Amino acid sequence: MPAITGKDYILRINQLKANIWHEGKKIIGNISEHPTYKGAIKSQAMLYDLQHQEDVKDLMTYFSPQTGDRVGTSFLQPKTKEDLTKRRKMTMEWAKTNGGMLGRSPDYMNTVLMSFAASASILEGKENCFPENLVHFYEQAREQDLSFTHTFINPQVNRSQLYFEDAEEPISATIIDKNKEGLVVKGAKLLATQGGMTDELLVLSPGGITSKANAFAFSVPSDINGLKFITRESFVNGESSFNYPLSSRFEEIDTIVVFDDVVVPWERVFFYDNLEVANSFKNQSAFLPFTLHQVVCRQVVKTKFLLGVAQSIVDTINISEYQHIQEKVTEIIVALETMEALLTKAEWNASIDEFGLMRPELAPLQVASCTYPTVYSKLTEIIQILGSSGMISIPTEKDFNSEIRGDLTKYLQSATKDGKERVQLFRLAWDLTMSAFGTRQTQYERFFFGHPIRLTSELYHSYDKTEYINLIHKFLKSKG
Amino acid sequence: MPAITGKDYILRINQLKANIWHEGKKIIGNISEHPTYKGAIKSQAMLYDLQHQEDVKDLMTYFSPQTGDRVGTSFLQPKTKEDLTKRRKMTMEWAKTNGGMLGRSPDYMNTVLMSFAASASILEGKENCFPENLVHFYEQAREQDLSFTHTFINPQVNRSQLYFEDAEEPISATIIDKNKEGLVVKGAKLLATQGGMTDELLVLSPGGITSKANAFAFSVPSDINGLKFITRESFVNGESSFNYPLSSRFEEIDTIVVFDDVVVPWERVFFYDNLEVANSFKNQSAFLPFTLHQVVCRQVVKTKFLLGVAQSIVDTINISEYQHIQEKVTEIIVALETMEALLTKAEWNASIDEFGLMRPELAPLQVASCTYPTVYSKLTEIIQILGSSGMISIPTEKDFNSEIRGDLTKYLQSATKDGKERVQLFRLAWDLTMSAFGTRQTQYERFFFGHPIRLTSELYHSYDKTEYINLIHKFLKSKG
Amino acid sequence: MPAITGKDYILRINQLKANIWHEGKKIIGNISEHPTYKGAIKSQAMLYDLQHQEDVKDLMTYFSPQTGDRVGTSFLQPKTKEDLTKRRKMTMEWAKTNGGMLGRSPDYMNTVLMSFAASASILEGKENCFPENLVHFYEQAREQDLSFTHTFINPQVNRSQLYFEDAEEPISATIIDKNKEGLVVKGAKLLATQGGMTDELLVLSPGGITSKANAFAFSVPSDINGLKFITRESFVNGESSFNYPLSSRFEEIDTIVVFDDVVVPWERVFFYDNLEVANSFKNQSAFLPFTLHQVVCRQVVKTKFLLGVAQSIVDTINISEYQHIQEKVTEIIVALETMEALLTKAEWNASIDEFGLMRPELAPLQVASCTYPTVYSKLTEIIQILGSSGMISIPTEKDFNSEIRGDLTKYLQSATKDGKERVQLFRLAWDLTMSAFGTRQTQYERFFFGHPIRLTSELYHSYDKTEYINLIHKFLKSKG
Amino acid sequence: MPAITGKDYILRINQLKANIWHEGKKIIGNISEHPTYKGAIKSQAMLYDLQHQEDVKDLMTYFSPQTGDRVGTSFLQPKTKEDLTKRRKMTMEWAKTNGGMLGRSPDYMNTVLMSFAASASILEGKENCFPENLVHFYEQAREQDLSFTHTFINPQVNRSQLYFEDAEEPISATIIDKNKEGLVVKGAKLLATQGGMTDELLVLSPGGITSKANAFAFSVPSDINGLKFITRESFVNGESSFNYPLSSRFEEIDTIVVFDDVVVPWERVFFYDNLEVANSFKNQSAFLPFTLHQVVCRQVVKTKFLLGVAQSIVDTINISEYQHIQEKVTEIIVALETMEALLTKAEWNASIDEFGLMRPELAPLQVASCTYPTVYSKLTEIIQILGSSGMISIPTEKDFNSEIRGDLTKYLQSATKDGKERVQLFRLAWDLTMSAFGTRQTQYERFFFGHPIRLTSELYHSYDKTEYINLIHKFLKSKG
Repeated sequence: MPAITGKDYILRINQLKANIWHEGKKIIGNISEHPTYKGAIKSQAMLYDLQHQEDVKDLMTYFSPQTGDRVGTSFLQPKTKEDLTKRRKMTMEWAKTNGGMLGRSPDYMNTVLMSFAASASILEGKENCFPENLVHFYEQAREQDLSFTHTFINPQVNRSQLYFEDAEEPISATIIDKNKEGLVVKGAKLLATQGGMTDELLVLSPGGITSKANAFAFSVPSDINGLKFITRESFVNGESSFNYPLSSRFEEIDTIVVFDDVVVPWERVFFYDNLEVANSFKNQSAFLPFTLHQVVCRQVVKTKFLLGVAQSIVDTINISEYQHIQEKVTEIIVALETMEALLTKAEWNASIDEFGLMRPELAPLQVASCTYPTVYSKLTEIIQILGSSGMISIPTEKDFNSEIRGDLTKYLQSATKDGKERVQLFRLAWDLTMSAFGTRQTQYERFFFGHPIRLTSELYHSYDKTEYINLIHKFLKSKG
Repeated sequence: MPAITGKDYILRINQLKANIWHEGKKIIGNISEHPTYKGAIKSQAMLYDLQHQEDVKDLMTYFSPQTGDRVGTSFLQPKTKEDLTKRRKMTMEWAKTNGGMLGRSPDYMNTVLMSFAASASILEGKENCFPENLVHFYEQAREQDLSFTHTFINPQVNRSQLYFEDAEEPISATIIDKNKEGLVVKGAKLLATQGGMTDELLVLSPGGITSKANAFAFSVPSDINGLKFITRESFVNGESSFNYPLSSRFEEIDTIVVFDDVVVPWERVFFYDNLEVANSFKNQSAFLPFTLHQVVCRQVVKTKFLLGVAQSIVDTINISEYQHIQEKVTEIIVALETMEALLTKAEWNASIDEFGLMRPELAPLQVASCTYPTVYSKLTEIIQILGSSGMISIPTEKDFNSEIRGDLTKYLQSATKDGKERVQLFRLAWDLTMSAFGTRQTQYERFFFGHPIRLTSELYHSYDKTEYINLIHKFLKSKG
Repeated sequence: MPAITGKDYILRINQLKANIWHEGKKIIGNISEHPTYKGAIKSQAMLYDLQHQEDVKDLMTYFSPQTGDRVGTSFLQPKTKEDLTKRRKMTMEWAKTNGGMLGRSPDYMNTVLMSFAASASILEGKENCFPENLVHFYEQAREQDLSFTHTFINPQVNRSQLYFEDAEEPISATIIDKNKEGLVVKGAKLLATQGGMTDELLVLSPGGITSKANAFAFSVPSDINGLKFITRESFVNGESSFNYPLSSRFEEIDTIVVFDDVVVPWERVFFYDNLEVANSFKNQSAFLPFTLHQVVCRQVVKTKFLLGVAQSIVDTINISEYQHIQEKVTEIIVALETMEALLTKAEWNASIDEFGLMRPELAPLQVASCTYPTVYSKLTEIIQILGSSGMISIPTEKDFNSEIRGDLTKYLQSATKDGKERVQLFRLAWDLTMSAFGTRQTQYERFFFGHPIRLTSELYHSYDKTEYINLIHKFLKSKG
Repeated sequence: MPAITGKDYILRINQLKANIWHEGKKIIGNISEHPTYKGAIKSQAMLYDLQHQEDVKDLMTYFSPQTGDRVGTSFLQPKTKEDLTKRRKMTMEWAKTNGGMLGRSPDYMNTVLMSFAASASILEGKENCFPENLVHFYEQAREQDLSFTHTFINPQVNRSQLYFEDAEEPISATIIDKNKEGLVVKGAKLLATQGGMTDELLVLSPGGITSKANAFAFSVPSDINGLKFITRESFVNGESSFNYPLSSRFEEIDTIVVFDDVVVPWERVFFYDNLEVANSFKNQSAFLPFTLHQVVCRQVVKTKFLLGVAQSIVDTINISEYQHIQEKVTEIIVALETMEALLTKAEWNASIDEFGLMRPELAPLQVASCTYPTVYSKLTEIIQILGSSGMISIPTEKDFNSEIRGDLTKYLQSATKDGKERVQLFRLAWDLTMSAFGTRQTQYERFFFGHPIRLTSELYHSYDKTEYINLIHKFLKSKG
């Protein structure tokens, strides 16, 4: 089954019956009907359906080099600038359907896997490394249109630099044994977004590990024996898309992943027990430029969504004449143009890398990933300030269906809308920036690519400053 | 009945049976048992109980000049610095029980009424003004320990400077008739916080009005004929104080207030049909310095609460060695010391005003009210950043009571706490800054005293800069 | 004489003998030898020399469509993206010689004139407009490689919105008469940078004028009868390029321009007495996109210079291990990448405009011009903070040539440099950000394109937000 | 000679003939007539004269407990809140004469010495410590009204945490020998402000030293054998107080101090060769609260000066109607009120310390010292933005005395001033924020008490957060 439909996706996920715990209970029955998962699964299904929609299917898919079948564009290993452009447009097309709210839409993980597989040569000839498994698994994922989530991070037990885990039982997921079938893994990992609603879970070491037993990369099906997903509280408050236009559709639950002696089959192991590889593979591979490219594409769409909401509020209560309002909206415009410009520069300067991929320039994408966490948070604050008391005057759909509807329609009217339409807009702004769903989006963007301070440090170190130091050196030597 | 107990308060509110609409339904039965109101009413009742608690009752009450009975300290018209200090300590004592989350604890409105009544002389001899009603009503409130909310703001229909309401039927609450019984009022006002859970509703014109029919001040009982409260969506998600340590206790619902031909008895009218008075009374009266004094006292306590949460997170995951963490916590310390210092300066420079009150210096309180909206928002962001992924890894109480408790206890443990205690702390941080309750708190502090830009403009104009201009003038004239 | 050399330029300027007042005296003799003008004239001459330097002359010049002679690339009216790229590279080549410090290098004004001339058709058939004069004058400038400064701004007498000049004698330059020879102009204009060291002075109305007598555009030779330049204090402190590496070379003096009944010949008048044209020509013409394109190119080079200085300081005193240092340098990297990205986007989206020019996209250039004023100021502050006490420990070249040189060489040494080299670097950083020259650069970038608040407002209004409003409209209509 | 006059001071300094190098030459003759030192010496002399001015002498002096003579109030060891208030008013009185520009007015160092001497008991019984020398020297300084500068910092060679100086010859000032006469010191120290224009130089170890040979504290006369002061470039550009209202009067030169085998007499040694004491004495002593108290008093006056300049500009060009202008001036008001409030809180909470001194509360003063570096820099930027192009249109006094005065008087006039007065005001604003003098002031405030990041870290660690952690602990334990 190449590029799947939404129905295919839902069927497959319902059949999985992954071991998911929610509010102290194991989820039973079709997960696509569970209140917490329902909206996101439906929204994700719509993405898959776009792969078959006539007007965009040539954008959303390409022909598999292996089978000739149509497969998803996010699996495409780009060799030309056109390929890169196609990848950008595909991601934006998907993101447009959800305002960029689905941080883990399938193209994200597909891109991760695509870039890892393209870089498999790094693993060649290294101890306990299986580049062929990685390549083969990527091909399988592409041909079957498998969906993924991943988990990198170890539990947040103690963040001191001097802390080394020494519990008797592992807390972080650890290889506790190897046998004929595969690696035996025990312990936990944080935070698999969409945990339980994807076919597969990709598991990797975070950087900076010090023990071989934590040095691994593999993928397992979400329903593998011994694997448990424990969700956080759900931020779905109800099904009404009037009340909760975003959280009712796009809540991607985050899960703690517990490995209880999970046996990872050898053919799904990409490497293990190799500290050097575990600590360097991600950065040596094509992961960073391509994943960031996908991320920035999505964030551009999200910023457009924010701009639309902000300007709609301004128009609705007719406040565009105020200078401080203009400044605030312009701050969103600046953010949007800047993100688009960084993306443009990355593509303009793309070039063929050592793996034969047309790789976007890294620095502008790093700049985007260093700045967007702060910018996004600032933009949500702007929307709150623009909305002012309107962000709190939010009765619900039931109120508008009751006998007091007349009062609300009249007293909550605005310059351009009646009370109901206006409350609908403000509820969207609220769900975007102030509901538990909205603030989780902010936190998600804030820490998406790791702690902003680490990103800054990486950019500082990776950025080539020689040209500019030489400029000064030469200037100081010159005679006036 | 002088200074009441919590039980008195609950009884009285339950008897009111105000006309409150919530989620499309009229609330029936005891409001103190309604899920949305329950927590706040209970928390407010605890405040009243403190008036009778042996170790603090001398602080929380004083002896009525009229009856000699103990009445609430927030009604005290201060004549000395000791009186002012007593008022400060009383407000802080109340605020400590709720971390400053109850923005409309009774002392707020009592202070408003106290300062208005003390300034009643302004109304003497002016057209359609009844200073004696105001004074008498204040005394009645003090002796009966009446609880209040208020409503100033007109509906946010159109914020253009050129907009004048000209609908056929009034949107903003308007005097549409006068008769023997009183004023007849029709239209709406925003946003009465605690609407329906107080004895009384104080209604005032906002500043800058242009029509006599909107120029009034009066108070009505919450159950008066024709008065309707329409609530926003409730942010109470459940009763568990583990899950929702703040929202389950301190949710102060905001309400839209609708007047359907409400007849306001003459003896409850303070003024009407007097544009000049309506636009100037608030600023000419003692309102600003005393109300801001109460507000800043509460905000100091709230800032202490934030500092406690922040440092608890830091200790729990052991991150105090990081410079950027130290900077963030220090930003809270700076905020706390600054707010306390501004309060200290206001009291240090207090002096007797034209109404015979010991009035705190206004400028430092204005500075606090201009800066806290931004500062508070920044501090909540700091807590989110300190908490990082821990703000999202939040399973619920039910999870900890289920068979997966072992996993959670272990995998979510921290340097100093087991999984459950640690999640409890992070849930508090989340409810404080990221739940719908928490973001409403942020929005509340942001707009508490009006739009920050207006506050800035007022401070600019009211601040006496002569001394400093003269300093420069003299300097320029001096010979080197 | 087509593309001139530095010698040509100096000769021509020396012959002008413009009427320049400096420190209360009229400047006499060769201006190229005057301490205040010397450095800038020499630096500007080096730019002209580059037009004849073998390795870059094909970049710096093109063949005149009129004569086939080589003329300066900044006069080129671009028809293709290659033309646009050539313009960018030319500006950067020039800017590199001065670290972007010469804000009024000839390409700036040449671009202004080029864009005005290309837009001459706007003036066709309008009252008191002479498009043919404009086109002809542009051609003359191009073929003779004339140098320019300009003056837009009226004196800063009273910035109130309600102020209208009504002095008996004009303060702002005003047409007081017309006669056979031309317009007679009286009054002053601010601030002609490089006033007196260019062949020509282009004079324009600022926007928002209300009197016909202030509505004009023309160019006059710097030595025209009745024209007087009054300089501000010079920021050249000495000739030593060790002590003053920037101010000794790049001080562009600012001048107040006084018109004492200057008669502007008719053939040099582009329009006059036409309020509508005076208030709209600049924005309707191709001025904004092309001038901003030149400006942003120069600012990119300047930002590289700042990054070079910052990183050199970091290396010299060996502070790169500190996170807060990395953050600060990274802020410069972010600024550089962002400016380059905005420039890239503007070129990527360039298209043929109504005048047949290949016009860069305006929005990203506006974003650059809205943000750079703040960013530049921030970057200079970063350099000051990085340099710390080293920015103050600045003995002079004479000290290093005296008997105490041994002490200085030893005690002011750094991790990588001896005392003299290290002081040279810190003096550069000081001259860049803290000398009177340096702070004037900051002020210059801050107000280069007008008050940032006006730029923000213009961007807000000109930016097309329809797509994003529709996005939200459609989203709200969609069924979940 | 107790409290001296200005004349006394000048005489004494002229007699010193300290070894000062400036621009490669040794200064010869009366230093009070040297262009670089002249202004500051005259301004400092005016401070001493105030000690004898009838209307303020009771404030500026008190009666020596030893002799009964009037001695300077800055030597007063405060035992009561009245003493503390007297100290505050004295510092403000002095600061008012120079707008707070004299960072090293005598009260600063007198306070340092006063607080050290009061804490001498810390040194009792410790190795190589001479508390009696310290006490005796303080008394001598008080009775003779000696003037001081000091030097703490080692040369900025290499700031890496891993750097330890290992040059063969010492770079940092080091004890290289001890003999009968005293300690022999060789090496350099940075940056003695006012170096060469004070009677004495106090020399101390910075914190965090690792070698005994750098562990010392002593004072030497400025003319001691082997001591050399090397100045930075002077920022005095001329004597005209019209042109340079601040730099012509208040330029406090910074000097590098070189010790060439200086022999420090034993009776002037406070301690040596004691690492533990060298690294802890400053923080254990009363130094921090009293020195910060003096500093904050001065900074309050400086902030008033900035507010006066800002508002004078606003009035002069009539821009107070603009909201963004109001916001900027209000930012200065906020800064002023905040600094005053922190000072008030520190005094309000003052209490008797272990040395019997009435010690101001430390935390609010630390908050001031953590925030003012950033705030001051921001305020200077505000003045630049308010002044806009007026900060660059600055002709000189000579221009106003020449035949073009008419043009300038007319064309540079403003709403309230003629051209000359207006330029005088803007030149003041320029000298305050943009001249080399002005930016050195900014840098001085920025690093006055050490790197802001260190100050933040110290505040974080010293601040008692227990109460707030307990608040949360208790809250979490409470039942809803």
